[in-house]
Amino acid sequence: MAAHSVAGAVQNLWLAARAEGLGVGWVSFFDEREMAALLGRWVGMPQHLEVVAYLCVGHVASFADQPELATAGWARRRPLAWAVHEETWGSHRMDPLEETLAAVADLDPEPGAAAAREHLTRMTVPPGALGGVAEIGVRLAGLAGACPPPLPEPAVVAVFAGDHGVHARGVTPWPQEVTAQMVANFLAGGAAVNAFAATVGAEVQVVDVGVAAELPPAPGLLPRTVRRGTADMTAGPAMTRAEARAAVHAGIETARDLVVAGNRLLVTGDMGIANTTASAALVAAFTGASAEQVTGRGTGIDDATHARKTAVVAEALALHRPDPADPLGVLAAVGGLEHAGLAGFLLGAAALRTPVVLDGVVSGAAALVAAALAPTASHAWLAGHRSVEPAHTLALDHLGLAPALDLGLRVGEGTGALLAVPVVTAAARALADVATFDAAGVTDKHEAGDPP
Amino acid sequence: MAAHSVAGAVQNLWLAARAEGLGVGWVSFFDEREMAALLGRWVGMPQHLEVVAYLCVGHVASFADQPELATAGWARRRPLAWAVHEETWGSHRMDPLEETLAAVADLDPEPGAAAAREHLTRMTVPPGALGGVAEIGVRLAGLAGACPPPLPEPAVVAVFAGDHGVHARGVTPWPQEVTAQMVANFLAGGAAVNAFAATVGAEVQVVDVGVAAELPPAPGLLPRTVRRGTADMTAGPAMTRAEARAAVHAGIETARDLVVAGNRLLVTGDMGIANTTASAALVAAFTGASAEQVTGRGTGIDDATHARKTAVVAEALALHRPDPADPLGVLAAVGGLEHAGLAGFLLGAAALRTPVVLDGVVSGAAALVAAALAPTASHAWLAGHRSVEPAHTLALDHLGLAPALDLGLRVGEGTGALLAVPVVTAAARALADVATFDAAGVTDKHEAGDPP
Repeated sequence: MAAHSVAGAVQNLWLAARAEGLGVGWVSFFDEREMAALLGRWVGMPQHLEVVAYLCVGHVASFADQPELATAGWARRRPLAWAVHEETWGSHRMDPLEETLAAVADLDPEPGAAAAREHLTRMTVPPGALGGVAEIGVRLAGLAGACPPPLPEPAVVAVFAGDHGVHARGVTPWPQEVTAQMVANFLAGGAAVNAFAATVGAEVQVVDVGVAAELPPAPGLLPRTVRRGTADMTAGPAMTRAEARAAVHAGIETARDLVVAGNRLLVTGDMGIANTTASAALVAAFTGASAEQVTGRGTGIDDATHARKTAVVAEALALHRPDPADPLGVLAAVGGLEHAGLAGFLLGAAALRTPVVLDGVVSGAAALVAAALAPTASHAWLAGHRSVEPAHTLALDHLGLAPALDLGLRVGEGTGALLAVPVVTAAARALADVATFDAAGVTDKHEAGDPP
Repeated sequence: MAAHSVAGAVQNLWLAARAEGLGVGWVSFFDEREMAALLGRWVGMPQHLEVVAYLCVGHVASFADQPELATAGWARRRPLAWAVHEETWGSHRMDPLEETLAAVADLDPEPGAAAAREHLTRMTVPPGALGGVAEIGVRLAGLAGACPPPLPEPAVVAVFAGDHGVHARGVTPWPQEVTAQMVANFLAGGAAVNAFAATVGAEVQVVDVGVAAELPPAPGLLPRTVRRGTADMTAGPAMTRAEARAAVHAGIETARDLVVAGNRLLVTGDMGIANTTASAALVAAFTGASAEQVTGRGTGIDDATHARKTAVVAEALALHRPDPADPLGVLAAVGGLEHAGLAGFLLGAAALRTPVVLDGVVSGAAALVAAALAPTASHAWLAGHRSVEPAHTLALDHLGLAPALDLGLRVGEGTGALLAVPVVTAAARALADVATFDAAGVTDKHEAGDPP
C-alpha cells in the first residue's frame, strides 16, 4: 500500500509539473535491483527501499523505434474484447473458441526456427551436440518468431480436475471421492505435483471443471465447474456438446488468466479417477488404434480390471463411433471435462504464443482434440515426458512430438511435465547466453584446417 | 563485516554474563527469514535487518537427544587431519586416497534404501507410479542412511580440465588450444555449462588438473595442475603412476572443499580436447570391450578420423595391456588427468556421503576407475544422462547405473548431469514433502475394497 501511495504522490508531482508547462517524464520500467544498486552508489540510497519510479526533467529529444516493453519481449497483444465483460465476469462479446482458433491459424514457426538453427551453428558447442535440447530451443524460437526466444519463466502448472461417470463400470479400484481428496491434497501442498513444482519453481493452479463434489473455495483453486462429473460413456454421451464447449472455454480463459498474470511457460496437469479410461477412448478415436492398443493399467490395476477396462473402452467406441473430424463431438461422446478444459488451455496458450509443456496420457488425449480443432496450435506444445500408458506414446506419435524425459512415470497431476521445465528453460537460456565462437575467441574446428 | 563486529560484541556480552555466573545461552542456528518474521511480529523489528544470534538467559533444563545440526542433516564428520596442514596448504599427515578408501568401505545403502521403499508405499501416489524418480530417491536415502534423505541443495558442478598427448595422433579436428579457450569461456560465463548451471541454480567450479597452457588466476578456477597435459599414450604411458595419484588427490580435495563450502550435491563435468579417446581406452580396459565397440564420434568427427581414432585406441590397448585390477596403473597408462581428478572427486564425495550426478562418457570412464578402487563408492553416484558415445552406455551398464535423462547430448562440460539435478532434487523433495494417505485423508485403494 505504501508503494501505491507513493505512486499517487509521484503522479501529482508529474501532473503539477505538466500543468506548469515543464517537460517531465515518468520512468517506471527498470530492473529493480539494478536501479537500487545505482541509487545506492550515486546518492547512498539504502538497498531495502523500493524504487517506485523516477522523474526525468526536460523534453524528449527522440523516441526509440519500438516501445521498451516490446524490445524486452512482452506478451502478445490481447484483443480489447477480453477486457470487456458484459453483465457478468467472463461474458465477452466474442466466442472464445472461434476467436482462439482464428488467432492460432496464422502461427508459422519457420522464420523463428530457421533463425535458431542458424544461431546454433555459431554457438561454442560442437555441431549437433545439444541433441534434444537444441530441438526444444528451435521450437521455442519458432513459436516466438525470433531467436533467442524469450525466457520461458515463470512457469505455472494448471491441474484440470474432473470426475467420470464410467467409474461406475469398475475400471479402477480407487473410489471416486479420491478425486476431491487429491484436489484437497494439492491445495494443502501435500502431493507429488507440489513437491515437483517447488523443485522447479512453478506455481500450482487447480482448475475444477467437473469434480463430482462441492469444493470449498481455497487459494489456488479456480472454480470453473461445468458439471459435477461426466455421465457413463457406455450408456450415452459423457456430456452434451454445449458442456464440452463450455469446458473448452474454461480452459482458454485459464490460459489467458495465467499468461496475463505474468506466466511465460504453462504446464498441463490433471486429476480424475478413471480418466485414463476416457483418455484411451479419445486416443482410439483420433488415432484409429484399437481398445486393446490404447488401454493401459493407469494407476496400476490387476489383470481382471484391465480386461474389464479394455472391454469398457471397446463398448464406448462401438456405441458412439466417434468421428475425428468432429472434435467437440468426440469430446462430448467419450471425453472428460478435464480433457475439454485441457484442450482449451492448449489452444489458448497457442493463441498467446506461450509455450506449454504437456504431461502424460490425459494431456496427450486432450492435445489430440486441440490439434484436430487447430493443427497449427501444436507448434506451441512440448512433450514433457513419455508416460508408461500405451495410449500416450500413440498420441505423441500422432502429434509428432518427441518427449524430453522418459522416467517411467505414471502419476499424472503434471509431475512429468514439471520435471521437463528446466530442460525447456535451459534450451532458451542456451540460445540467449551461450557465446559464439567469434565472441568467445574459441577456435572453430572449421577454421582449424585438417587434423594432422 | 558489520555482522562480524556484532558477533564479537555478542560474544563479549556472553563472556561477561558467564563471568558473573549468569546462565546465558547463545543461539545462532535458525531459519533467518523465519526468525526475522517472528521478531517483526513480536518487537516490530524491520525485516531488512540481519539477525546474527540471540541470547537466552537462564540455565539449560534438559538437552536434546542429538545436537540440533544432526537432526537437520549435517555433513558427515570430517577427520581432524583435514584441518591440519603441515608446512604447506594441502599437505596432510594422512594419505588422502587411503583415508578416502577407508571411509568408503563401510558404505551400506540397505537400511536407508529399505526405509525409503517402505515410505513410498504410504505416499499419496499410486504404487510404483514415480518410476525412475523413486529409484533416485531410494539411492539418496541409501547413501544418507535415512528417509527422507537431506535435500541435495545447493549443487555445484566441478569441471575438470586437462589436455591429452594423444591429440598429436589426429583423433579430432579441434586444435588443442581449444581446451584453454573453453576454460576461459566457462570462466566468462559463456558456455553451455554456464547456461545450464544458471537454469538449475548450480555453481560452476573449474579445476585445472592438466591444461597444456598457463591459465591466469580467475574466480571460479581452482589451479590444481599436476602436469600440463598427458603424454601420447600410443608412445608410452600417458603419465606416471605418481602423477595419476596426485590428480586423484586433487579430485578428493576438490570434493572436500566443495562439501565444506556447503554444497550438498556434486555434479561432474569435464573439458579436454581428445578426452573421448582416453575415455574409450579406459572403458575398454575396465569392461573388456573392443576398440571398435568403445570408440565414438566425440564432437562429431568424420569417417576417416573415426577410423584413425579407433586404430589409435586399439594401438594404446595393445601397447599397455592395462590390468583392471590395478586402477592407478590403467589411469597412468591410458587415462587423462581429468579422468584421474574425477575419479578422486567421485571417491571423495562417497566418503562424505554426498551424492554426485555423473555427466557423460568422461565421467563414466572415471567412475570405472573409482569403482575399481572402491566398489561401494558407486552407491553415492547417480547417472545424470545417457550420452550418444557408445562407451558411455558400456560404462553405465558395467556400473549398474540407469541414466535419468536421454536427450542425445554430447557436449560434455557437465551439461547433461546439470539437467538431471532437478530430477534428483525432486526425488528427495517427494520423499520429504508428499503426504501419506493417512495424513492427507485420501482413501488408499487397499482400504477401498474390490471395485464394483
